Amino acid sequence: MENKQYILKERPYGDVTNDTFHMRRVSMPSLREGEVMVKTKYISVDPYMRGKMNEQKTYTEPYVVGKAIYGAVVGEVVKSKDKSYQPGDFVHGIMPWQEYCSIHTEDVTRVNVPKEDLPMALSVLGMTGLTAYFGMMKIGKPREGETVVISGAAGAVGTVAGQIAKLHGCRVIGISSSEIKNHYLENDLGFDDTINYLTTDDLDYELSRKCPDGIDIYFDNVGGKISDTIMEQMNFFSRVIVCGQISTYNSKEKNIGLRIQPMILTRSMLMQGFIVSNYHDEFPKAQNELAKWISEGKIKNRETIINGFENLPRAFMGLFRGANIGKQLVKVY
Amino acid sequence: MENKQYILKERPYGDVTNDTFHMRRVSMPSLREGEVMVKTKYISVDPYMRGKMNEQKTYTEPYVVGKAIYGAVVGEVVKSKDKSYQPGDFVHGIMPWQEYCSIHTEDVTRVNVPKEDLPMALSVLGMTGLTAYFGMMKIGKPREGETVVISGAAGAVGTVAGQIAKLHGCRVIGISSSEIKNHYLENDLGFDDTINYLTTDDLDYELSRKCPDGIDIYFDNVGGKISDTIMEQMNFFSRVIVCGQISTYNSKEKNIGLRIQPMILTRSMLMQGFIVSNYHDEFPKAQNELAKWISEGKIKNRETIINGFENLPRAFMGLFRGANIGKQLVKVY
Repeated sequence: MENKQYILKERPYGDVTNDTFHMRRVSMPSLREGEVMVKTKYISVDPYMRGKMNEQKTYTEPYVVGKAIYGAVVGEVVKSKDKSYQPGDFVHGIMPWQEYCSIHTEDVTRVNVPKEDLPMALSVLGMTGLTAYFGMMKIGKPREGETVVISGAAGAVGTVAGQIAKLHGCRVIGISSSEIKNHYLENDLGFDDTINYLTTDDLDYELSRKCPDGIDIYFDNVGGKISDTIMEQMNFFSRVIVCGQISTYNSKEKNIGLRIQPMILTRSMLMQGFIVSNYHDEFPKAQNELAKWISEGKIKNRETIINGFENLPRAFMGLFRGANIGKQLVKVY
Repeated sequence: MENKQYILKERPYGDVTNDTFHMRRVSMPSLREGEVMVKTKYISVDPYMRGKMNEQKTYTEPYVVGKAIYGAVVGEVVKSKDKSYQPGDFVHGIMPWQEYCSIHTEDVTRVNVPKEDLPMALSVLGMTGLTAYFGMMKIGKPREGETVVISGAAGAVGTVAGQIAKLHGCRVIGISSSEIKNHYLENDLGFDDTINYLTTDDLDYELSRKCPDGIDIYFDNVGGKISDTIMEQMNFFSRVIVCGQISTYNSKEKNIGLRIQPMILTRSMLMQGFIVSNYHDEFPKAQNELAKWISEGKIKNRETIINGFENLPRAFMGLFRGANIGKQLVKVY
């Protein structure tokens, strides 16, 4: 049987390009005691991976040049040397960008959704849904009647974060890069209002018009100038959830902008960064609550799915152009 | 009897100058039912007052041009129309920069320290001591063995904040503007190390040398470039207490610098601003704890006292040159 893998060919400087990746044929994996062999069904591509393509360590180890890129994957067990897993079972884990791989069962979790909902295990019930959940619940702490602004609102995290704020009785304003996305946010997800930052001449004015009572929670997925503008309209005792800074990940320039400490000081603001694994012990509880909200129709999930293993680079690069609505996945098999 | 008052003559643009203030003679205050007449003993001058000299509102109302400047004062009751206060009692309150004033007893608190310790009611047991206490205890949450950096370390807040961190078993590094201050911090207050930012060519290098394990808590009194440099050496799960931004208060330029959100994100940092009145309900408990630490010799207090009502402008302007060690007060009578 054939097996394919994507490796990091060279570290990108600035934008990620096709030269960043190389697809190669590799042999089928061996299978040791305690492992399962997994046929990859869906691969998650995520902005945080851009950081792992750089040389310096941040909160995780960088990818190694010449070795497989890896991330969240859902796959089907095709062989098993662990009695508790059978062929046909579905599992979730951090696995290489590879068609088939073997992995110890200690490093996977069982996926218990119906087969047609498998993408949910990588979206609303996966890392991005959990990221939205913990950011909003642990840092944002939304209260009824508050105004919530979400940048990157139509992305995997933003869509879920906004809906969580809605079900807590907040007024939610989403910022995205297209009318199609904004139409989706308002009409499908119930966001109260939206701003297209690409076509707005004056984001400051638009924000003040759409947030007449100021902003109580800012869920920041993008950073840069958009966040500078939003910071100036934050309220006393407001909270900023620093979840992503996608506008800066490919930048070659020093990230210079408005110093925000004076606003944080005079408005008694809280700003907190996090990564989802900080809350690892609470994943099951959060997944249960998210699943309940989905079953009640309070949270809708959406994925943008590209077919074909060979399209992984394209799917990944699309994240930085805002090509996706909701979670970007690649369907392998 | 003669009575004098300082008013805001004109709003400063940039540096505060003698033209900012005007001293004038006013009549002795009348005294209504429920009020006490207070003879001002000590006046507190504080950097936050610079913000109130600007036109725009921040968290408090601006001073009014042509009207008295006001702030924390300790004075002696000389007349009383409230049975619970007698002449000779000492009171603390927000009062005008004025030799004599009348104030309702609902707006004062009784000062219960011995007469020779009256300045403490405006320093370590007053607003600045409480500011250090709540910033460190509510936001910093120091744990044994952690590294704490304090900018503006020799000021009224910094000296107390550093000592609170020391008594929680932290390694404390103070940043100040002179060797005399640093000698005081190390030898009198037990700071582990200090940096003179004015004579250091490379603050980044000095910090990394003096904080080999990175920084867990940064108590920020100054903002600006010093804070940019410190931010780059913060640890995973570190906390930044945004307490003051004195380096920027007189600035005419837009406050541009390093965007810090990427660091806050990748290191799961918390940054929080506050003003001491947020914790108003807990003042008595905090003052008891501070008084206990003082009596146990764990916290030493220091004031820089200038004599003479007419020296209020000079004392205030000195704050921005770092003229004071510990709390800057003006002794009126």
